[in-house]
Amino acid sequence: MDIPDLKRFLAETFPAADAFGFAIAALDEDHLVLSLPTQAKHLRPGGTVSGPTMMTLADTAAYLIILSHIGPVGLAVTTNLNIHFVSKPEPGELRATARLLKLGKRIAVVEVRLHGPGAGGLYAHATVTYSIPPGSAAPQPG
Amino acid sequence: MDIPDLKRFLAETFPAADAFGFAIAALDEDHLVLSLPTQAKHLRPGGTVSGPTMMTLADTAAYLIILSHIGPVGLAVTTNLNIHFVSKPEPGELRATARLLKLGKRIAVVEVRLHGPGAGGLYAHATVTYSIPPGSAAPQPG
Amino acid sequence: MDIPDLKRFLAETFPAADAFGFAIAALDEDHLVLSLPTQAKHLRPGGTVSGPTMMTLADTAAYLIILSHIGPVGLAVTTNLNIHFVSKPEPGELRATARLLKLGKRIAVVEVRLHGPGAGGLYAHATVTYSIPPGSAAPQPG
Amino acid sequence: MDIPDLKRFLAETFPAADAFGFAIAALDEDHLVLSLPTQAKHLRPGGTVSGPTMMTLADTAAYLIILSHIGPVGLAVTTNLNIHFVSKPEPGELRATARLLKLGKRIAVVEVRLHGPGAGGLYAHATVTYSIPPGSAAPQPG
Repeated sequence: MDIPDLKRFLAETFPAADAFGFAIAALDEDHLVLSLPTQAKHLRPGGTVSGPTMMTLADTAAYLIILSHIGPVGLAVTTNLNIHFVSKPEPGELRATARLLKLGKRIAVVEVRLHGPGAGGLYAHATVTYSIPPGSAAPQPG
Repeated sequence: MDIPDLKRFLAETFPAADAFGFAIAALDEDHLVLSLPTQAKHLRPGGTVSGPTMMTLADTAAYLIILSHIGPVGLAVTTNLNIHFVSKPEPGELRATARLLKLGKRIAVVEVRLHGPGAGGLYAHATVTYSIPPGSAAPQPG
Repeated sequence: MDIPDLKRFLAETFPAADAFGFAIAALDEDHLVLSLPTQAKHLRPGGTVSGPTMMTLADTAAYLIILSHIGPVGLAVTTNLNIHFVSKPEPGELRATARLLKLGKRIAVVEVRLHGPGAGGLYAHATVTYSIPPGSAAPQPG
Repeated sequence: MDIPDLKRFLAETFPAADAFGFAIAALDEDHLVLSLPTQAKHLRPGGTVSGPTMMTLADTAAYLIILSHIGPVGLAVTTNLNIHFVSKPEPGELRATARLLKLGKRIAVVEVRLHGPGAGGLYAHATVTYSIPPGSAAPQPG
């Protein structure tokens, strides 16, 4: 699935995720970048981006890069998410860069780095595991 | 801090968390129970409780049990959250039971079980680590 | 599988694990307890139990409680291990108490608490995920 | 600390780790590579590298890259290790590439990728958190 496919699938299947406010900024064989212009609802007092906002963005970026490889599988579900928060995120644009660590027939593991715009510092690092339902197409990447 | 103290502190300091809709259902030396009557905004298509809702509830329950021991420390921050989603949550009441694994001077580690009302099955299991700012009171529990 | 079955299977299939020195101290429907009388090879300078010793014990306890439910499945493999070290372990007996969080057809998630003998403090808390090969018997516990 | 400093410190302070058999293959500002020619004691039946071997290598690589930045701090201790095993490791050389995600005054978080020699596939991905004792020099990297 390419960027327009992913957007259409998400809008139809997960309207709440779609309303969250992010955009798919880049997609190639190995990476997917989600961009979120943070709004008031994404912030904690003091202006820092909230933990749940970052966890939601990491989970969504992981889901989308898996779909980009296996197609529109609504029933793929998160089985584990592990996130380290390593620096205080600034308000403004939040970016999540997802990369597949494993794409098997039954499990996919994705690494997600959350950072600011440009070459700024790392805000958080997540690994996200999805369970892929039997029968879905899931070619192992080279 | 007892339940009214925690509610007042949260309402003043994190109005968004307070607006999330949960209630502190129980608190003793070892456990804190957060209850969330799930609303439409907490659900995924199909009626299941969303992952971000569960992660938010786990993170908040961990924060509150730490505060109940060390007092109103707004600057305690999550450094790590690891969550396993183990069964499909039903809509209705979601409960998070938090228990301290460690309360040190610098780090607190909390285990959180997310489950339905009553003695129902486990939905998710999380471990949440907070960093406690230097100078906060943080007595080690027996 | 009961305790003698598990010991026989492990001795035949994983002689190195068997030589590690632990004993299955207890097994019922919900829990399995592994006991390790720590020897010099398990210790770090200063006499504390080494991290790898605790990780090995946690992983083995998880594997054995899964086998006790699904039978002798040599090909079940660890896909994730997350461990929090929360207090300094004393030399002497190390005990790992494993409990199933999920036993599905494809994935099992086990919680393991590592502690000293008796009602002593918690040393570490682990969650361990195994992938179960297709076709293995894996009844979901009540 | 450079490679000879790290080797000397480890041999004096952790003889068991030193005897494990690895070599520091590379070190620069951002990365440290540990190489382990796997021996019989590191393998499981069937010839695959054991999980505990990979966890030990990941933990040690994380420790060494932290020491290379903050100097010989024997009391830095692992507080969390999370590892995803993503493909079956071949016997032969095992390499761990460590990279700092965060180096704070109190906590360091390190990412470690475990892989075969050359540009081969990923075997495992770990994040390792160390607690750094107060008073240790811990300059934040740019």
